Amino acid sequence: MIIEKLAVVGVGLIGGSFALALKQAGAVREVLGVGRSPARLAVARELGLIDRAVDWAEAGQADCILLALPVGETEAVLNSLAPHLKPGAIVTDAGSTKRNVVEAARAALGARCADFVPGHPVAGSEQCGPAAARADLFRGKRVVLTPQTDTRADTLATVRLLWETAGAQVELLDVAQHDRVFAAVSHLPHLAAYALVDDLAQRPDCDTFFRFAASGFRDFTRIAGSSPEMWRDIALANREAVLAELDAYLAALQGLRNAVAADDAGALLDIFSRARAARERWMKQQDS
Amino acid sequence: MIIEKLAVVGVGLIGGSFALALKQAGAVREVLGVGRSPARLAVARELGLIDRAVDWAEAGQADCILLALPVGETEAVLNSLAPHLKPGAIVTDAGSTKRNVVEAARAALGARCADFVPGHPVAGSEQCGPAAARADLFRGKRVVLTPQTDTRADTLATVRLLWETAGAQVELLDVAQHDRVFAAVSHLPHLAAYALVDDLAQRPDCDTFFRFAASGFRDFTRIAGSSPEMWRDIALANREAVLAELDAYLAALQGLRNAVAADDAGALLDIFSRARAARERWMKQQDS
Repeated sequence: MIIEKLAVVGVGLIGGSFALALKQAGAVREVLGVGRSPARLAVARELGLIDRAVDWAEAGQADCILLALPVGETEAVLNSLAPHLKPGAIVTDAGSTKRNVVEAARAALGARCADFVPGHPVAGSEQCGPAAARADLFRGKRVVLTPQTDTRADTLATVRLLWETAGAQVELLDVAQHDRVFAAVSHLPHLAAYALVDDLAQRPDCDTFFRFAASGFRDFTRIAGSSPEMWRDIALANREAVLAELDAYLAALQGLRNAVAADDAGALLDIFSRARAARERWMKQQDS
Repeated sequence: MIIEKLAVVGVGLIGGSFALALKQAGAVREVLGVGRSPARLAVARELGLIDRAVDWAEAGQADCILLALPVGETEAVLNSLAPHLKPGAIVTDAGSTKRNVVEAARAALGARCADFVPGHPVAGSEQCGPAAARADLFRGKRVVLTPQTDTRADTLATVRLLWETAGAQVELLDVAQHDRVFAAVSHLPHLAAYALVDDLAQRPDCDTFFRFAASGFRDFTRIAGSSPEMWRDIALANREAVLAELDAYLAALQGLRNAVAADDAGALLDIFSRARAARERWMKQQDS
């Protein structure tokens, strides 16, 4: 047992999987669920993700509270929770952006920010909701924590231990570096996939295009099946870094366009060969 | 038995899988292989994809000859083959672009183009080479044929029957429509995936980025593991349509950029929601 009571705000894929993993590991005695939708909470309870649904006052009495919701809701949720937090209660989150979450925590929690640990499990799926939760979702996956200079060491240690108990490999990053890295390897690909599908979907003869789309298209656009609300929040929460990555990507595509327009076979072969080699190196590191 | 002798020029994933499927179905008596690399031909023979390696003169005596190679090599290969073609020999190809293949066939074969059937199996993988060949590669996949007004009806019927015997679903398209549709749903995604990986790979701190790349990135960039030579040829062979798609995609991404820069949550939600809905409709059609 690491903690007695865990409260999860947002009982979807991430919150539900975290709860399930810790329950199965015997790391928590009781899991409380908070959410706007009574129906989702009922499903989460039926699936055994949470023991019961509670209000903000009761959630504040938990030993650890995980926020697992679209990052745009962080500040409002922390404001609802703040008046009820028991002394020493640990708060952490699972948002894909960290600068805005840290700002929200400072605004809502003030000095109690010392017990707030910003976190980002690098796991997920285009599926969402409590029914998608799995106890092994985080097994072997990275979880990035971005502690601040005033984060209490034992609070950080507890959050790290909870994620490790859920099977994850915990890494620490600076907030700005986190947001820059994930803008490139996660946020941009999501925007790029949404843009491609929407561009086709808007065409009058889109059925002909979709009719011949095959496995390459399916994999390239898988992440365009992700939650629109979640990704709207991420794109805006990480706006500066996302804009920088969009500009870099637009420039890279423009470079490719120039090479195609100029019939520059050598330039195309260079770009494609470098990309394939880099991806192969990456895949090998993933396997090891 | 549909034909006695099949010759495959290019004994890689596509050519090898076609040969294997037809042999297993008992649709051909003998498969001849032609290629530049004696080592690859030896592997193809060991794997049972071909019965023996032959030269252009002998390949021309086959009843049907499939070209399965980078589209940029089509005209040179047809020029090598043309003097040796026996009367009535059927020639077909498996290239991802069709206008340039038809032009190459007209130039190399002249009036014998009546026995040439341009084709495009919509199947494949980022893997290539004879070792990747599988008898079931085309099962349930589409194969597009783009016959010309002078294509002989019985030649077309034979090529259709061969692909159907390999398990594919054959569809006919006009050449220009083929090239426009595949520029959008296949060629552009490949360029977009290569561009993203190369943009990251060029950065001095690329290791940090790749370190945190996860499953979304992996699937989005899977096609950046494809053959650089093959995709260089495709991008240039289908240049006009590819440029049009690159421009449409650049405009779509610029629209997304504007929405992010303007903090326009509504516009982002609209784009993401439309894309997700369109992709879900497409996935349902694929399943049915």
